[in-house]
Amino acid sequence: MSSSFGTLFRVTTFGESHCKAVGVVIDGCPPGLTLTEADIQAQLDRRRPGQSALSTDRQEADQVIILSGTENGRTLGTPIALQVANKDQRPKDYGNMRDIPRPSHADYTYQMKYGIRASSGGGRSSARETISTVASGAVAAKILREKHGIDIVAWVASVGEIEAAAVDSDTITRQEVDATLIRCPDKAAAAQMEALVGDLKTIGDSVGGVVACVIRNVPLGLGEPTFEKLEAKLAQAMLAIPATKGFEIGSGFSGAKQRGSQHNDAFTQKEGRLGTLTNRSGGIQGGISNGEPITMRIAFKPPATISLPQPTVDFSGQEAILEAKGRHDPCVVPRAVPIVEGMAALVIMDMLLRQEARKALQF
Amino acid sequence: MSSSFGTLFRVTTFGESHCKAVGVVIDGCPPGLTLTEADIQAQLDRRRPGQSALSTDRQEADQVIILSGTENGRTLGTPIALQVANKDQRPKDYGNMRDIPRPSHADYTYQMKYGIRASSGGGRSSARETISTVASGAVAAKILREKHGIDIVAWVASVGEIEAAAVDSDTITRQEVDATLIRCPDKAAAAQMEALVGDLKTIGDSVGGVVACVIRNVPLGLGEPTFEKLEAKLAQAMLAIPATKGFEIGSGFSGAKQRGSQHNDAFTQKEGRLGTLTNRSGGIQGGISNGEPITMRIAFKPPATISLPQPTVDFSGQEAILEAKGRHDPCVVPRAVPIVEGMAALVIMDMLLRQEARKALQF
Amino acid sequence: MSSSFGTLFRVTTFGESHCKAVGVVIDGCPPGLTLTEADIQAQLDRRRPGQSALSTDRQEADQVIILSGTENGRTLGTPIALQVANKDQRPKDYGNMRDIPRPSHADYTYQMKYGIRASSGGGRSSARETISTVASGAVAAKILREKHGIDIVAWVASVGEIEAAAVDSDTITRQEVDATLIRCPDKAAAAQMEALVGDLKTIGDSVGGVVACVIRNVPLGLGEPTFEKLEAKLAQAMLAIPATKGFEIGSGFSGAKQRGSQHNDAFTQKEGRLGTLTNRSGGIQGGISNGEPITMRIAFKPPATISLPQPTVDFSGQEAILEAKGRHDPCVVPRAVPIVEGMAALVIMDMLLRQEARKALQF
Amino acid sequence: MSSSFGTLFRVTTFGESHCKAVGVVIDGCPPGLTLTEADIQAQLDRRRPGQSALSTDRQEADQVIILSGTENGRTLGTPIALQVANKDQRPKDYGNMRDIPRPSHADYTYQMKYGIRASSGGGRSSARETISTVASGAVAAKILREKHGIDIVAWVASVGEIEAAAVDSDTITRQEVDATLIRCPDKAAAAQMEALVGDLKTIGDSVGGVVACVIRNVPLGLGEPTFEKLEAKLAQAMLAIPATKGFEIGSGFSGAKQRGSQHNDAFTQKEGRLGTLTNRSGGIQGGISNGEPITMRIAFKPPATISLPQPTVDFSGQEAILEAKGRHDPCVVPRAVPIVEGMAALVIMDMLLRQEARKALQF
Repeated sequence: MSSSFGTLFRVTTFGESHCKAVGVVIDGCPPGLTLTEADIQAQLDRRRPGQSALSTDRQEADQVIILSGTENGRTLGTPIALQVANKDQRPKDYGNMRDIPRPSHADYTYQMKYGIRASSGGGRSSARETISTVASGAVAAKILREKHGIDIVAWVASVGEIEAAAVDSDTITRQEVDATLIRCPDKAAAAQMEALVGDLKTIGDSVGGVVACVIRNVPLGLGEPTFEKLEAKLAQAMLAIPATKGFEIGSGFSGAKQRGSQHNDAFTQKEGRLGTLTNRSGGIQGGISNGEPITMRIAFKPPATISLPQPTVDFSGQEAILEAKGRHDPCVVPRAVPIVEGMAALVIMDMLLRQEARKALQF
Repeated sequence: MSSSFGTLFRVTTFGESHCKAVGVVIDGCPPGLTLTEADIQAQLDRRRPGQSALSTDRQEADQVIILSGTENGRTLGTPIALQVANKDQRPKDYGNMRDIPRPSHADYTYQMKYGIRASSGGGRSSARETISTVASGAVAAKILREKHGIDIVAWVASVGEIEAAAVDSDTITRQEVDATLIRCPDKAAAAQMEALVGDLKTIGDSVGGVVACVIRNVPLGLGEPTFEKLEAKLAQAMLAIPATKGFEIGSGFSGAKQRGSQHNDAFTQKEGRLGTLTNRSGGIQGGISNGEPITMRIAFKPPATISLPQPTVDFSGQEAILEAKGRHDPCVVPRAVPIVEGMAALVIMDMLLRQEARKALQF
Repeated sequence: MSSSFGTLFRVTTFGESHCKAVGVVIDGCPPGLTLTEADIQAQLDRRRPGQSALSTDRQEADQVIILSGTENGRTLGTPIALQVANKDQRPKDYGNMRDIPRPSHADYTYQMKYGIRASSGGGRSSARETISTVASGAVAAKILREKHGIDIVAWVASVGEIEAAAVDSDTITRQEVDATLIRCPDKAAAAQMEALVGDLKTIGDSVGGVVACVIRNVPLGLGEPTFEKLEAKLAQAMLAIPATKGFEIGSGFSGAKQRGSQHNDAFTQKEGRLGTLTNRSGGIQGGISNGEPITMRIAFKPPATISLPQPTVDFSGQEAILEAKGRHDPCVVPRAVPIVEGMAALVIMDMLLRQEARKALQF
Repeated sequence: MSSSFGTLFRVTTFGESHCKAVGVVIDGCPPGLTLTEADIQAQLDRRRPGQSALSTDRQEADQVIILSGTENGRTLGTPIALQVANKDQRPKDYGNMRDIPRPSHADYTYQMKYGIRASSGGGRSSARETISTVASGAVAAKILREKHGIDIVAWVASVGEIEAAAVDSDTITRQEVDATLIRCPDKAAAAQMEALVGDLKTIGDSVGGVVACVIRNVPLGLGEPTFEKLEAKLAQAMLAIPATKGFEIGSGFSGAKQRGSQHNDAFTQKEGRLGTLTNRSGGIQGGISNGEPITMRIAFKPPATISLPQPTVDFSGQEAILEAKGRHDPCVVPRAVPIVEGMAALVIMDMLLRQEARKALQF
């Protein structure tokens, strides 16, 4: 069992890059929610390939269909199956990539784990699998927004060595994020990032980056210590996204350099609750949301599939030069923005349901 | 459900800082393993408070007892319950900490989540809960070592701004790590770290740090994409340790700055498998172990409980100055070393069982 | 979470009676299995409505499509999504059934649990949901047969008061079962059953029955005490089938009347293992398969939807007479035969994987 | 994973017949509940051996201790660990039972599944394991009673061929059940049952029986279709009790003989909801509680361990005569009464939490 996530709001995903369809079943969605394909499509459009000159030139419409779980535009409380057809199901000419596992890609480990692998594209390790996360995350996000005014915004904080200036996580909006193709709210940095990505696309190289994310208006009390602390589930969710290498909550690695007297977030009275004057905790204390914005950062490595020649060995161990064919993203972070948002929504939604159950039976 | 972890090798922990005992039930331990308390105690001794001048002065023997699951020193395949008595079960005088929630501690969030909290110490959020992880992790580690020669070594990579020189993750041993009280193999850095921690203990402040960890000899093929990729479960496990703020696998955040042509790990022929010339992937590709050492880093914030006066507010929102009483660690990283090792062992053990099931039924 | 079943071989089902499709995602299917739609369709054809004069006159082709998880007719080890389109998705004219909850049906409880329900047909409680069990069970059964020669045969043991003569559970085949429309191997009893069902169909009444099932060649050692004993998971699986009211393993309720000296199954030497001279245990001892055939019986109530007039009340509590429209099965047991077989296969498959994991790490 | 049960109210049990202790960890218990050992001990006393002349002569005090999860007699919302020491931990002289697996007992299957087994008594398959169910069930039952007035009463409905007259499940109380040692409310039948059990104890034989159970005041809407329908989880729970062979909900196997026009429960207006005039459904429709009393029956086989000589074979396959030593129950049903009640409480408690989560987020 590996394609399911969540305890009460539970998603199960399916699909490879060249099968008939990718999709997701959402089990445990609250009944009565108004829901149509349009509620989901917007985030899928932010994820789809070919949306700008910065991403792969492959074009996929990625139209979602609701197969079950709604009637007359409202959820029934039954499993919601969402499906996106794969436009091109024919195995592709991937040239010598069939014989030579791509360095730092999943080709070799999939073959060794399963004894078989999809003959073209990434198979199950393809970024197409993230369609399921984005689609189900959009459903979760709609509930969170309508019930609690929770909103989730992610943006590109760095590309390669280019770092954006600090973003105000209290006010940043998706509209501001989408103002640049690279999805970085610092427009000067964004221009540099876009230039770099354009150059790398031309020469066939790739580059990594960091996505930051804030979740606002999270009710106090979410998170299930000890093994499902809120930051622990967020970390799992984010590291389950392809190409991720690191996760920070609040102060992250910089917090490890500080002293307690600097790092502690003093309490203050806020409306109806205690709040904190600073937010190095990133909105979580003891694994439980404290009512402040949840802030995190996720590191993405440079995409492994590059067209520059790479000396390596083939599956049989013979030396070989790999020159990857196909059209690949030189940098995943702009398209990763809605994926990070989707994962965040899935975690918060599940935790919200679990805390509501506790509250209802509390003495 | 929040105190359980794992699918086939499943641990369930219990205990607060001042109840009768803390402990863990291990369900799914393979039968026939030779196992006595001594196999577990060694790691608990590395975790216990009062072990050196660098940690809290509280003394706890933390003697483990096996309540069930073994007979004549061998496991029966039935649940193994491990228990460590709490030496002092009387609620303590924690001074004004009863009325004033400690900044950046779990006092406030526990109270708000549960509507009640343990009256003294950290309750369930206490570091005593990590006894369960260390004890069950020691059982997992013994199996991994005996069956596959897998070994797991963690060490202190930094304390505050003091960073250790690079450690050879292929050869580092627990003996080398334990050569200094701070558990940092770079002796020059260790001396500086120890001096800093000693100073902070005197003045009542605290400091953060980073623990690094390597897992060697992991079989190819562990990890369960997509939601339980190996790095995703490691990230969850590590972020479930108290005071953690960040996680990196392989190149981590530094990988986000690189280009694909720099970052990709070229393949080479190794004994009986393909290996990689470099290991920026940290031993995992596509969420699946690739046979190379698994390397990761975990950021710990400075402990929240400091005796320096802190301006804050009490539970009722009134301004107050907190001066924490009690004896607390000025820096958790030396004692976190066996906790990180324990979590790593729990993840690998569970993944190993799951992959073995697949292999047995593969066509 | 309620639409998933299994730990390692995990199925997640979706679909209502009048949405676009019903289906199932199988996560954890071993890789390398040869699998096409034809392997699944045969059992679906035994389940589909309209297959004989004894069942509802509704006709549904129930053609299954594999959406993901295979390539070139072999499984990849990734999730296998199976889908069957609903022929007619238009809400039907169900007459006064919209206002009057059917007695002993799920109409009222669904409305009260979810605050909403599908406007026509049974929605999620419809027998169409069992398509998912039959389809995924067929995949499990293929693996069990190819890997261990396990075979599973269910048949009709009684309809109303008409009981079949004892069937030899060591030799009974699906071909023998399918020799009569009612799927009862006792041809004399079958003729009576068919006559009764035909009469009830004419007058608009319904009748209950019992399905018996045997699972042969199950390896010794399957079942996960204590909460997932083999008979406990079989009982859950069978009681999850619509219209079931009872479950017996081995001697069942008749065993409760006996003395230990009568009921105990004495051991004897069989090939390579101990066997038993009798099989009142039904192939399971202490929750674990003992190598003998697993025998069980499942009670099905008469279908709730009958066209005879029923005095009852409507949703508002006003007295009303319900005369159900539509075409409904007068007796579900012939079509329940492949559903029982499917559930049995899902349970055994999951338990087999779990025991293989244990064996691989045993000391 | 096999020793855990429940999704939100999750119990994990441990312990064999001759280890240091048996016990259970309850994860997910609502906070603020007043709870002391006395709340649990009463049900344990109804389960303990040696409580009457009808049961085994072994005496065990079975005193429960709360190790964690409460402070000042109130639950903290953290895991509650309960422990009962095993009085006698020394392996016993079980005569030739070490070499000869007891017919219809778990000796042989445990040995084959795990490759090892406890050297004396039943090990993990011992009835001592049911202490964990009874203890955790008592906690669940207290919450159900205090929050919703739910009460659960089980009784002995038959012993061997002796059947009690019908019991009024709307009014039966535990006091009435405990009025006879055999726990059968029909005093005439009880006298015959007690005489039979006494005779069998003298001659060293055993006998089976049936336990009936009612759960009253269950809120409408509990149960999680499709795989965790309420009756499906009750069936799993009951078949997980040692020595069970069958389960019936409502009309059970007798319902399979009826026609729809006889069996359907017509609706009627009750206070604040629709109710039914009859209750052949046993309080559940479509897998969801309908507000009527939940009624079920559970078949127990005669205990396998009898002192009458039994011809069988030993572990090596050689013919042998087994004459079991030790003191064993001639009939388990009186002591099974609190076990059935405990399992019922665990199921309802978990389902209640899950439905409350849904209700809180419903639109």
